[in-house]
Amino acid sequence: METSCEFCREAGGRVLWQDALCRVVEPAEAGYPGFTRVILQRHVRELTDLPREEREHLMRVVFAVEEAVRDSMVPDKMNVASLGNMTPHVHWHVIPRYSDDRHFPAPVWTEPRRAAPHRPERDARARELAETMARRLDEAMRP
Amino acid sequence: METSCEFCREAGGRVLWQDALCRVVEPAEAGYPGFTRVILQRHVRELTDLPREEREHLMRVVFAVEEAVRDSMVPDKMNVASLGNMTPHVHWHVIPRYSDDRHFPAPVWTEPRRAAPHRPERDARARELAETMARRLDEAMRP
Repeated sequence: METSCEFCREAGGRVLWQDALCRVVEPAEAGYPGFTRVILQRHVRELTDLPREEREHLMRVVFAVEEAVRDSMVPDKMNVASLGNMTPHVHWHVIPRYSDDRHFPAPVWTEPRRAAPHRPERDARARELAETMARRLDEAMRP
Repeated sequence: METSCEFCREAGGRVLWQDALCRVVEPAEAGYPGFTRVILQRHVRELTDLPREEREHLMRVVFAVEEAVRDSMVPDKMNVASLGNMTPHVHWHVIPRYSDDRHFPAPVWTEPRRAAPHRPERDARARELAETMARRLDEAMRP
């Protein structure tokens, strides 16, 4: 626990699923329905600081999340990234991208190219995703 | 093989190591010594399009690369990302980051904040990394 670390102090969004190693949260990123993060429960700086078994478990969760996001959101492309320059506490961004989203084809961290499109059906899909995430993760992570 | 796909047509950099599934390349990104990519040999769009065994193998390579890059480059932070909005052919960016690099703490895809620092010792480390990558990967991927 690092008191200066955002992901040690706060959940980082609405928790959709969690286990002893990590939590899956909906951070509500403006213009990005379905944007999901997988955050390690404890403070670890780099992926390669994790013992192999934990890293493999974490990646199983990340890919189960990617699958759930793809199925619900039907994006044009999936983006998956672990950066942590601002918050050096292991976490993954799992981001459904659309050709008309604010930054496409650039990464979401760049200057926006356009306004967020009005796509109420995507917001509805994101709500469905949030509702089904726990069941989907339980199924995917069953031993 | 997609003739319009950059990573089907070209290696994407100097190949440091490869197996049947993927290749590890040094793309020579300006201002980013040690920047390494792991590129799937065949054309697949999304990570979750890969069968589980192949995805796990690919991630073993990615984390072995991350470990080699960390050991050689001694960065302030590692960044790992699979985006593919421009080139939808599975690949991973493995990027050693420094607090004085062109974009830190922002991702490397944003507008630069400063000129690339003059750090000949990092270029020397990147050369050492390129020379030792094959041996390190052979060791890490030994069954």
